[in-house]
Amino acid sequence: MYELGVVYRTIPRADNDFAVRLGALGTATVHEAMGRIGLMKPYMRPIYAGAQAAGTAVTVLLHPGDNWMLHVVAEQIRPGDIVVAAVTADCTDGYFGDLLATSFKARGAQGLVIDAGVRDVRVLTEMNFPVWSKAISAKGTVKATLGSVNIPVVCAGALVTPGDVIVGDDDGVVVVPATLAQKTLEAAAAREANEGAKRAKLAAGVLGLDMYNMREPLQKAGLKYID
Amino acid sequence: MYELGVVYRTIPRADNDFAVRLGALGTATVHEAMGRIGLMKPYMRPIYAGAQAAGTAVTVLLHPGDNWMLHVVAEQIRPGDIVVAAVTADCTDGYFGDLLATSFKARGAQGLVIDAGVRDVRVLTEMNFPVWSKAISAKGTVKATLGSVNIPVVCAGALVTPGDVIVGDDDGVVVVPATLAQKTLEAAAAREANEGAKRAKLAAGVLGLDMYNMREPLQKAGLKYID
Amino acid sequence: MYELGVVYRTIPRADNDFAVRLGALGTATVHEAMGRIGLMKPYMRPIYAGAQAAGTAVTVLLHPGDNWMLHVVAEQIRPGDIVVAAVTADCTDGYFGDLLATSFKARGAQGLVIDAGVRDVRVLTEMNFPVWSKAISAKGTVKATLGSVNIPVVCAGALVTPGDVIVGDDDGVVVVPATLAQKTLEAAAAREANEGAKRAKLAAGVLGLDMYNMREPLQKAGLKYID
Amino acid sequence: MYELGVVYRTIPRADNDFAVRLGALGTATVHEAMGRIGLMKPYMRPIYAGAQAAGTAVTVLLHPGDNWMLHVVAEQIRPGDIVVAAVTADCTDGYFGDLLATSFKARGAQGLVIDAGVRDVRVLTEMNFPVWSKAISAKGTVKATLGSVNIPVVCAGALVTPGDVIVGDDDGVVVVPATLAQKTLEAAAAREANEGAKRAKLAAGVLGLDMYNMREPLQKAGLKYID
Amino acid sequence: MYELGVVYRTIPRADNDFAVRLGALGTATVHEAMGRIGLMKPYMRPIYAGAQAAGTAVTVLLHPGDNWMLHVVAEQIRPGDIVVAAVTADCTDGYFGDLLATSFKARGAQGLVIDAGVRDVRVLTEMNFPVWSKAISAKGTVKATLGSVNIPVVCAGALVTPGDVIVGDDDGVVVVPATLAQKTLEAAAAREANEGAKRAKLAAGVLGLDMYNMREPLQKAGLKYID
Amino acid sequence: MYELGVVYRTIPRADNDFAVRLGALGTATVHEAMGRIGLMKPYMRPIYAGAQAAGTAVTVLLHPGDNWMLHVVAEQIRPGDIVVAAVTADCTDGYFGDLLATSFKARGAQGLVIDAGVRDVRVLTEMNFPVWSKAISAKGTVKATLGSVNIPVVCAGALVTPGDVIVGDDDGVVVVPATLAQKTLEAAAAREANEGAKRAKLAAGVLGLDMYNMREPLQKAGLKYID
Repeated sequence: MYELGVVYRTIPRADNDFAVRLGALGTATVHEAMGRIGLMKPYMRPIYAGAQAAGTAVTVLLHPGDNWMLHVVAEQIRPGDIVVAAVTADCTDGYFGDLLATSFKARGAQGLVIDAGVRDVRVLTEMNFPVWSKAISAKGTVKATLGSVNIPVVCAGALVTPGDVIVGDDDGVVVVPATLAQKTLEAAAAREANEGAKRAKLAAGVLGLDMYNMREPLQKAGLKYID
Repeated sequence: MYELGVVYRTIPRADNDFAVRLGALGTATVHEAMGRIGLMKPYMRPIYAGAQAAGTAVTVLLHPGDNWMLHVVAEQIRPGDIVVAAVTADCTDGYFGDLLATSFKARGAQGLVIDAGVRDVRVLTEMNFPVWSKAISAKGTVKATLGSVNIPVVCAGALVTPGDVIVGDDDGVVVVPATLAQKTLEAAAAREANEGAKRAKLAAGVLGLDMYNMREPLQKAGLKYID
Repeated sequence: MYELGVVYRTIPRADNDFAVRLGALGTATVHEAMGRIGLMKPYMRPIYAGAQAAGTAVTVLLHPGDNWMLHVVAEQIRPGDIVVAAVTADCTDGYFGDLLATSFKARGAQGLVIDAGVRDVRVLTEMNFPVWSKAISAKGTVKATLGSVNIPVVCAGALVTPGDVIVGDDDGVVVVPATLAQKTLEAAAAREANEGAKRAKLAAGVLGLDMYNMREPLQKAGLKYID
Repeated sequence: MYELGVVYRTIPRADNDFAVRLGALGTATVHEAMGRIGLMKPYMRPIYAGAQAAGTAVTVLLHPGDNWMLHVVAEQIRPGDIVVAAVTADCTDGYFGDLLATSFKARGAQGLVIDAGVRDVRVLTEMNFPVWSKAISAKGTVKATLGSVNIPVVCAGALVTPGDVIVGDDDGVVVVPATLAQKTLEAAAAREANEGAKRAKLAAGVLGLDMYNMREPLQKAGLKYID
Repeated sequence: MYELGVVYRTIPRADNDFAVRLGALGTATVHEAMGRIGLMKPYMRPIYAGAQAAGTAVTVLLHPGDNWMLHVVAEQIRPGDIVVAAVTADCTDGYFGDLLATSFKARGAQGLVIDAGVRDVRVLTEMNFPVWSKAISAKGTVKATLGSVNIPVVCAGALVTPGDVIVGDDDGVVVVPATLAQKTLEAAAAREANEGAKRAKLAAGVLGLDMYNMREPLQKAGLKYID
Repeated sequence: MYELGVVYRTIPRADNDFAVRLGALGTATVHEAMGRIGLMKPYMRPIYAGAQAAGTAVTVLLHPGDNWMLHVVAEQIRPGDIVVAAVTADCTDGYFGDLLATSFKARGAQGLVIDAGVRDVRVLTEMNFPVWSKAISAKGTVKATLGSVNIPVVCAGALVTPGDVIVGDDDGVVVVPATLAQKTLEAAAAREANEGAKRAKLAAGVLGLDMYNMREPLQKAGLKYID
């Protein structure tokens, strides 16, 4: 978080299998399993509908208008990783485009999460390379100032430690600390297990009021029905 | 507007036929027919392109980060209704997802208009369940505090009285008071009736300047042409 | 910029061929070729994914909530033009819909760039008429106050002089002054020429660090690797 | 809400004494007494620190960039009133300045609440004329389109019916329906009555945890202390 | 606008006397005299209440997070100038603090207008050095990339040509092109001349409706009074 | 960061003397000494001009619209602390007012930093109790859901670990990790030591261009002067 000009080459990554399975459950379920924390701000949006990705975080801290470190982080990507890019101040510049995406993809990256802007979104979409960003902008950047790679960063309001599991889909991006990945997976899977039965009941017209036994607590809380 | 902890079970609804026909005309035409009032703020966006819905409003007032009352409102939905959800303070949490959508749909809801966030948007899109919201967010909510159902609410800057006609499409969401539904429908239909002929003229190269006889008022206002 | 109530009928337009060829290169490449200036703010978004347009600017200055001058500018459109609309104060109203689009298209317009709102986006999408705007809103406008046509305007933070080349795509909108069109085209084409080779190398796993010879300057700047 | 071009000259106003006494209690206390509803959005800010006002609402509905109706509403002001101005679409123009303030003050207005911009704020401050607005802007407006006076309006997210009590201070603006003024005053006064004793206890170092008996419910909710 | 890495040392400045006299009239009056154009966006706020300045523009184009050129522009300041700083992309960093203010003041600058952030605002306030900015931020900047000095720039939505008159006060910042300074001054002074008499009438209870003869046009427009 | 329902009673605090001395240097200087990281987003503003505070962080994680844990954190305050409050999702509600301020002050708190809203700002100002917040709002909150006290939190984009030094003033809020407090203090003091001499030179008319020896690097970068 507080070191500039350093690249950590060795980071403990969460087991990739956790990432794959958490990704299959989706951000909403994972976020609930986390106790409703660990979510990035909702301004982080996928650049195309239906984008989905899950992987282990390699992180990079950038400066406003400067994408130099994205080239540095590329070398640290291993298959199954997702790059998480934070900026030291608010910036909407287009830090990332089709060339970097080609490079990231060749290194095995599952996607990019960046608290700034990206460009070449038509090509990125055709490449099916998922990106979550704050903005889309053709604005280019310089390569002048050092940031860092694989230090803890705050990205869109969430702390990301290198090696954490990152899950992204249409609903946003959630961060699962490596140490909590297994426990979160179990809780999320348990949560998911009930959903099919619940959905069937609700589809059949059963009300959540009854399915979740809410009528009594609502009455206790003082809810009044008026005809 | 000012009652908390109450559910009105009996509300006078506008004739559903008005809703269907206003919906076919679209928000822009209906809004013009209303005299350019009754539109929700433009930050209300459909969760997928091409979303369209029209129906009678059942309303719900929620608290920040608390979706308890969405389960209460589900029971009050009748076929042809649209749920309109307001919050007592700005909030982007994901109040509504695929389970509630399944329940709302089973009750006959035509869609949801919510001045907050929703989640599970990929599934909602697959379900073809139209939602207009301020945000998309995986952030879950608690069930702790009573709001109200079927009281007048202010949603995204527009007053909605239970039973009003709600029309939503790609251009936004417009509210037509039940008492004005017939008159608005007539004005909107009259407006629409002329559009085909106008479109044909404009497509043939006739200018709006001539078709609407604007040249004289523009000249009177002082417009000068310079070669 | 500072004249109200005037319409310039004769403007020097950049060669349309420059517009076509700059459009084929895309906003990101053109913006880089300009030296990273001339881009509109990133809040300007296409109303549908994949929108692309390039042409010579005819400009119009509007007042908040008043679209009268869009009818005036229609007459000044020549085939190959793009209409660029600025407003004297922030406004999200829907100034432009399917009827005006029909008229603009009949006159040969390639698209619209408007620092305000538009409506009828479903029909505009079906018409394949590209629009970049700040907002989508069903809110209609009045026709009461004179603005101007074909004066220099500031649109979404960029100065647009009538006749400039405008290029718009998924990444935003860039303005190329008529006098710089040829030089920019050459620089952009040169830039583009290298991209294929670069992309192939990156796809093969070569790192930008090596391809761009960044390792030495990064070391000089003090970058440290830690295992 | 839905009538344009009308001025209601006769409105039932809440007793002015309620307004005065609610004003003395302040927005936070009044808003709590209302059950935490009726507050305008927090973007409504006083133009100078320490602004305070309370009165009965005369309302006006304006169009974007058009302040004509502010002159119409001036005539309807009675001593003790506060003018509440809504706009049919988002606008930051400076609708109101020192001349209108002079007129409003001469008519007995206690202040202005406007969901748009104002100007001449230095003079307004010197006049000690309290205004709550969304923006400050030197941008002037036209006088071209009719709105209405003394119809119900939605201002900054709150419904205001003519004659309602409006209370504004540094914390924002709250609306008390005329029919609820007495009941709200009683609840607010009761709430206020306890505050002095509470403040003395807290100043003496007693914790809210003890004063409000929160330790048991916190423990029941599962709170754990770790040394 | 489109040249990078250049400093124009010789610019034609508007007569400083025009600046002084326009400044005395204030932004609202000057902006009206300009025909309601030339105003910067209302997000530009003075860093302290009561800030007032007027002068001739020296301009500087900066890059995001890089304040190098502020040192370059300092040398070009002449007594009576105001520095106008634009950035090539949105940025809230604190480009300017007490040291630069000391330097600018020593060179005779009347103030700073910057479409970005500033810092040391307590000291700037004590120095009585007026600044209008988009943000206040302690975030520092680098000195790595060339911009330009004394080229035309777009600052907060307004075109500023070096030598233009800039007027700033509590209501915002307005730009008067050098060539329009005299004409604008005359129009503004004429406008101001009537204000005293108008204010006296309004203070005496005369309504704007009568003073401006609005009753007839309102009636023609269809305004209806209801008792 | 990821534990809910826990209160850490024992935290290692940075030496209070570091906090006092860093506070005297101010956020801009401290932030530079940190290498330009550790700053909260610039939307965090003091509730009154001239607010200044420095202390050791006790942290609290809140839920939207729920201030229960502010009462829990009060007990953990020791003289010299600053309370840092984060929320699990964006919220502008008024979580904190004069009663809690009285309690916090009685416990020895130096101030509050909250990524949400506060109220009673007139009284807080009179109490001279410094608060940095995202919003001011009379909107009250409930007491229903557990958060945590003295866990690491992300507040306004910055990671805060309990015991870190927090410095706030008119320019914003900066976080100095306890482990970096001494080193940062030394760097900041060194930086400050030179400022007096620099200021005197600049006030005497010496240019930063010369004082910082920028002319040569600017020339190397290609800067051109044009007369």
